[in-house]
Amino acid sequence: MSLSFAKRLDNVETSAIRELFKLLGKPGIISFAGGFPDSAMFDVAGIRQAVDTALSDEPGGALQYGATEGYQPLREQLAGFMQSKGVQGLAGDGLMVTTGSQQALDLLGKTLLEPGSTAIVEGPTFLATIQCFRLYGADLVSAPIDDAGVQVDRLEQLIVQHRPRLVYLIPTFGNPSGAMLSLERRKRVLELAVKHQTLIVEDDPYGDLYFDAPPPPSLLALSHQVPGSRDWLVHCGSLSKVLSPGLRIGWMVAPPALLAKAVMCKQFSDAHTSTFAQATAARYLAAGLMPATLATVRATYGRRALAMGQALRQELGAAVEFVQPQGGLFVWARLTGAGGKLRDAGELAQRAIEQGVAFVPGAPFYCADPDRSTFRLSFATAGEDLIREGVARLGRSLA
Amino acid sequence: MSLSFAKRLDNVETSAIRELFKLLGKPGIISFAGGFPDSAMFDVAGIRQAVDTALSDEPGGALQYGATEGYQPLREQLAGFMQSKGVQGLAGDGLMVTTGSQQALDLLGKTLLEPGSTAIVEGPTFLATIQCFRLYGADLVSAPIDDAGVQVDRLEQLIVQHRPRLVYLIPTFGNPSGAMLSLERRKRVLELAVKHQTLIVEDDPYGDLYFDAPPPPSLLALSHQVPGSRDWLVHCGSLSKVLSPGLRIGWMVAPPALLAKAVMCKQFSDAHTSTFAQATAARYLAAGLMPATLATVRATYGRRALAMGQALRQELGAAVEFVQPQGGLFVWARLTGAGGKLRDAGELAQRAIEQGVAFVPGAPFYCADPDRSTFRLSFATAGEDLIREGVARLGRSLA
Repeated sequence: MSLSFAKRLDNVETSAIRELFKLLGKPGIISFAGGFPDSAMFDVAGIRQAVDTALSDEPGGALQYGATEGYQPLREQLAGFMQSKGVQGLAGDGLMVTTGSQQALDLLGKTLLEPGSTAIVEGPTFLATIQCFRLYGADLVSAPIDDAGVQVDRLEQLIVQHRPRLVYLIPTFGNPSGAMLSLERRKRVLELAVKHQTLIVEDDPYGDLYFDAPPPPSLLALSHQVPGSRDWLVHCGSLSKVLSPGLRIGWMVAPPALLAKAVMCKQFSDAHTSTFAQATAARYLAAGLMPATLATVRATYGRRALAMGQALRQELGAAVEFVQPQGGLFVWARLTGAGGKLRDAGELAQRAIEQGVAFVPGAPFYCADPDRSTFRLSFATAGEDLIREGVARLGRSLA
Repeated sequence: MSLSFAKRLDNVETSAIRELFKLLGKPGIISFAGGFPDSAMFDVAGIRQAVDTALSDEPGGALQYGATEGYQPLREQLAGFMQSKGVQGLAGDGLMVTTGSQQALDLLGKTLLEPGSTAIVEGPTFLATIQCFRLYGADLVSAPIDDAGVQVDRLEQLIVQHRPRLVYLIPTFGNPSGAMLSLERRKRVLELAVKHQTLIVEDDPYGDLYFDAPPPPSLLALSHQVPGSRDWLVHCGSLSKVLSPGLRIGWMVAPPALLAKAVMCKQFSDAHTSTFAQATAARYLAAGLMPATLATVRATYGRRALAMGQALRQELGAAVEFVQPQGGLFVWARLTGAGGKLRDAGELAQRAIEQGVAFVPGAPFYCADPDRSTFRLSFATAGEDLIREGVARLGRSLA
């Protein structure tokens, strides 16, 4: 006899990506596979100063149990950070701190999703969102996107058809798509939320990572232009891509009734997010260190994105199509089959490993009807020379 | 129209204790209500040194994404810590790091519990366990305890009757009961696990907090004496009560198949526990700072427990009965009604607040059939003079 597990576990499987990641240990591999920032970008000195201040100022606050909603000075700093990006009417009490934005997804699943309920996500979308929501028993429906983000007419049809508990979007520098929801579509999404009384979840871990011009305002920042939309809007933010994933600091802005339920669920999930990390992040933000950190990160990733785009055009030519990213961490590309070349990105990934370069094929990012010609390349963690060498290897894999 | 929440939320309610905690802000209140360690005990200098070392030695390890299973140097330190307490055959790979031991409970719920499944818990037990398991839809069954812990004959009957997915026990300095499962019963619990192929969860946040003699070995340490029992045993540990709750470092030892499922679920819960906190804890343990910290904490809490016991006997006399604690954070007491005095601890709690002392009535700690004469007093956070003054106020509340 053996252990009986809950049936919800049958809804997920160990991801294909995880299997691929096991191959990354192979010596000499250049990896474009990760979804993480470059460790070399971390402001270690600033973080050291912040934790030192936190432990000096209020050691009890940094080391004792804390409120489930979050460490109040951090909530206020995060509200201020959001205000600086155009969000109106948000105080510290309007958000909760989460253990990375992954936990915000988990709490949304726990509060809103169950067997028989539906969630609409973009096709493609963040893989861990698909798995997280499926663990709560939800049916997932895929809304098609193009370079301007989710196709709003189609989204409206799907909302009417499926009456979802929530619609999950990454409007800015989408993962994996890199797509940017246009300003016009952002307003229409908010109007849809009100019209159909449907909850929209805006996941925004990448919005600060723009290279030149800032992206359109977030749905949250735009919500005051669409009366009633704030009642149907959740916004998830994160310090992981811009400061440090290891702190596990995310946050969630939500309508009060939902926020209260999510806090109750968090109480029984992990009681609260590490106050040690929260107090450190609060002192980091309070010290005014973020603008300089963001400037460095944007400049570095901008150069790398440019190098990757140029190399792809040079080495792979018409065999691949992609939109040059204006921010985020990823190039999302499609094998065209031009010149009779490979169209299956899964097969390309296998060949590429043999050539010494790794990336993630696109299929697992779709909850339905995967486009197997797609793949995702991260330009975040390799320097420009390595990027050029890696893309050259990719070119050889396709030859 | 308003948001539709998942039905699982109907299984829990905001706790009575939480409502009581709101009253604690009243000026001059002496609180015996908390379940937390004294902030004055935190080894701030040692933790500062540990985080400093972590950021110097391997800043990427402390600030980057990490493995869901945990930061490997911490897993190895924790395995060593468990070995030092008599656990055999445990390597770093045999445990996962969790975001506080609360998350271990959540992951057990997620992997094992669902509507229609049953979990057996002690009556009384940790309140957040009851709520956490109910959120996953499980039916809870209460196993009676006495001063020597869970009554094993009764437990066996309940196992046979309910075929539970798991049996949750706090064998050492139980919360709230303070009860200590005897060595003989520990062995019988392990034998029951094998005989009935039933998973036993040993939650052990307090085992290191003994005052004089160490408690009997943990179920995990004893498991090598009962062949096959390790296959049916989960052990949850925590640094929260002995080092710092704010780090949110817990861990779970479990059979490999269950550990793998829990790791998969954790991937979609919070990706991993803060590497910043994990690397700090790893360096703290590696620096050999824990034995001195434990010695200080044990001596301090031991003095406070003694002061509280003496004051209770002096101020409340025959109106209250309790076993003098030999460790942990709590006195668990029962109103006897002697001399025609109050027997309802909920009413006493209300009166006590007016007298300027707070504690938690026992009823919410029972998943069924609450004993309303019980209450829990924490001796951890007040000094001896305050303890005496608080207990005197308690005496006046009962008069």
